[in-house]
Amino acid sequence: MEFTIARGEVYLRISAILILVLAACLIAFDTQTKVIVFTIEKKATYKDVNALKILVYITSVAAGYNMLQLCKHSAWAYSGSKFERSYISMAWISLLLDQMAVYITFASNSAALEASVLAITGSQTFEWIKLCNRFTRFCSQIGGAMFCGYVASFIMALISTISAYRVFRMYSPKLYTVSE
Amino acid sequence: MEFTIARGEVYLRISAILILVLAACLIAFDTQTKVIVFTIEKKATYKDVNALKILVYITSVAAGYNMLQLCKHSAWAYSGSKFERSYISMAWISLLLDQMAVYITFASNSAALEASVLAITGSQTFEWIKLCNRFTRFCSQIGGAMFCGYVASFIMALISTISAYRVFRMYSPKLYTVSE
Repeated sequence: MEFTIARGEVYLRISAILILVLAACLIAFDTQTKVIVFTIEKKATYKDVNALKILVYITSVAAGYNMLQLCKHSAWAYSGSKFERSYISMAWISLLLDQMAVYITFASNSAALEASVLAITGSQTFEWIKLCNRFTRFCSQIGGAMFCGYVASFIMALISTISAYRVFRMYSPKLYTVSE
Repeated sequence: MEFTIARGEVYLRISAILILVLAACLIAFDTQTKVIVFTIEKKATYKDVNALKILVYITSVAAGYNMLQLCKHSAWAYSGSKFERSYISMAWISLLLDQMAVYITFASNSAALEASVLAITGSQTFEWIKLCNRFTRFCSQIGGAMFCGYVASFIMALISTISAYRVFRMYSPKLYTVSE
């Protein structure tokens, strides 16, 4: 049981890293150039929207954080859990960091989604023009990145549930641990 | 100790409700009319921005949810905790709902913040005009609402910590309960 959960966490973290990196790449390498009038060209990149810039940073940092957790995980697996005291504080810190990672990824994704929705619909009252009918491919790629971001948030939420389980288990070994 | 935490939760929930209602009212009753050219007037309301509309709904629902929790809380306080089994499942459900409430409030706030930032800065590349130099009072009121929203999210995060403590305590009474 314990082994299964540990392995499950590793798989979840690896998939979270892959999806986060995919999302960051999808946004960062997304450019489209359109001719507006005669020779005047317009290039759309993720740098035009602050929310996307922030999202690239945050997904990268989240991927890096999960990578570090993976390293810590394998380090613990080899050393064995001899240091019971520091193991408990480690589990708490992991839980808090995991929670923070989920919140921040989820929120920045939602902020970027709002910007994307504005780009699709425009705003008549505000005289903001629609952009996605001009930069269609750019927008659909961003849409894919958004989707990846939400999937990654969901996976990270699952991981933080496992972290919570780790903390729980330490305070009540009888209820949660099944013999190996 | 137990009594203090219960009272703390009640105070936190009441303040969360008040702040959420304040945020919803700040957004919903925020209008500003500006004369653009001669007799052509423009009125800015929260209905012009989808993110603000959604935020009004979500803050209202979150306030209502906290109100229900408060009712449940006082109902339990009077009935006493005789039904140990259903109390445990109640605590789990509370924890999950509290977590969901925090996530959703936080994310919708971030989405509305992104829309507001776009309204303040505009976007040169996208030819989106700045709006807050025209509708200054409208924008600052929305800013106040955003701030309230984040404060409420923070308070709700604290509440969900208390919910987590409740769940914890049930599985390990020795570590967490101090005699009354």
